[in-house]
Amino acid sequence: MTKIQNRRTIRKYTSQDVSESLLRQLLTDSMRAATMGNMQLYSVVVTRDAEKKRELSPLHFGQPMVESAPVVLTFCADFYRFTRWCEQRNALAGYDNFLSFMNAATDALLFTQNFCTLAEEAGLGTCFLGTTIYNADGIINALKLPRLTFPVATITLGYPDENPAQPDRLSLDAVLHNEVYCDYTNEDIDKIYEYKEQLDENKHFVEINGKENLAQVFTDCRYTKKDNEAISKSLAEALKKYWFKE
Amino acid sequence: MTKIQNRRTIRKYTSQDVSESLLRQLLTDSMRAATMGNMQLYSVVVTRDAEKKRELSPLHFGQPMVESAPVVLTFCADFYRFTRWCEQRNALAGYDNFLSFMNAATDALLFTQNFCTLAEEAGLGTCFLGTTIYNADGIINALKLPRLTFPVATITLGYPDENPAQPDRLSLDAVLHNEVYCDYTNEDIDKIYEYKEQLDENKHFVEINGKENLAQVFTDCRYTKKDNEAISKSLAEALKKYWFKE
Repeated sequence: MTKIQNRRTIRKYTSQDVSESLLRQLLTDSMRAATMGNMQLYSVVVTRDAEKKRELSPLHFGQPMVESAPVVLTFCADFYRFTRWCEQRNALAGYDNFLSFMNAATDALLFTQNFCTLAEEAGLGTCFLGTTIYNADGIINALKLPRLTFPVATITLGYPDENPAQPDRLSLDAVLHNEVYCDYTNEDIDKIYEYKEQLDENKHFVEINGKENLAQVFTDCRYTKKDNEAISKSLAEALKKYWFKE
Repeated sequence: MTKIQNRRTIRKYTSQDVSESLLRQLLTDSMRAATMGNMQLYSVVVTRDAEKKRELSPLHFGQPMVESAPVVLTFCADFYRFTRWCEQRNALAGYDNFLSFMNAATDALLFTQNFCTLAEEAGLGTCFLGTTIYNADGIINALKLPRLTFPVATITLGYPDENPAQPDRLSLDAVLHNEVYCDYTNEDIDKIYEYKEQLDENKHFVEINGKENLAQVFTDCRYTKKDNEAISKSLAEALKKYWFKE
């Protein structure tokens, strides 16, 4: 049983399967998360089939957990089910817009985080694939998602076969503001990120990437302006195609 | 101590304050949530000041918890701190785009949900105000949020002074799909929402609103197409103003 305080991402899993009854219990309990107007604007698609995992893998940039985890869960913002209900009741559904997408994405993410917490408490390990929205169009096709649904998070799930160290985190004061946002001085920023810049693993990243400093590893290698702008465009196009009515 | 399975939204609080040390511990532990590339793309603004709560209240549609709760927390997507660091390190930050906003909103929402879980475990009650993005511009001004930050969730927090019944939830099979999204038949949709339509409180809502059915209460009174479209527009404008570079 892992508590939130002790959690870490698990990327390697034993061959032990996750029972259907445990998975159902965890998902049922996760639905206790807060939800907009109790509409529960989410769905989850469970992938256990090896062929389907192979199909999903490149859509997650080939991250090996997608194929090696016994279970892959794709959490989706979903206004489709609710809209279908409205349509059958002569009620004018107006949810093909940006606000409603954000409402549903929020519901889905709270549900996802509850699931992770409960799965870890039950002895399972999870890896959160934040890149799900990067290839949304491909995932929508692979999982046959209908209009007014959109994948927002993928979790790989299984029993842990590793026990990595907990990653570093910023000090609380770096993210906490009292009453109003207290703008950072240059010295504050230096101080906030200094410990991160001094970590051996981060110094190593700077070196192998031939960069001047750690920030450049992020901006030039991991999360570049060019990639972010290109993917923003395809993300907006996917939302237009599957969610927004033109 | 409330577990996820037993949680309910708490809107009434005793006069007991929430100690700074407990709040700091809960927020510190919440930072264990998964985060994109360990960038921790969030901030939280703590409101304890009565005058500031009065200022926030209308921005949350006058929901009484904003003024009556001892603590109000505004969780923000935040690429500002990280961008400031990049700027000080001669690194080209490219985070003023839609993808980066979604990345930061995701980080912030996972952090928020962890906080709610831990707060409830510690005996506190929470109410999640999903309407935070409805008046983002006003909240940004009230809390003096800088560029590349955006409020995505507000939590009112205090010791519970009520013990409401748990709200209904859909059956798991309504939201669960195996391998691919299994489209609903009309009969499926009827079955999924039937129990909700039969609840006495929902029958009462239909009656007092003079509607034909429960779906129309949602579409005509609570979450209308007209409102959703108007707020989508102001939300997109706020993002353009504070997040996206034109």
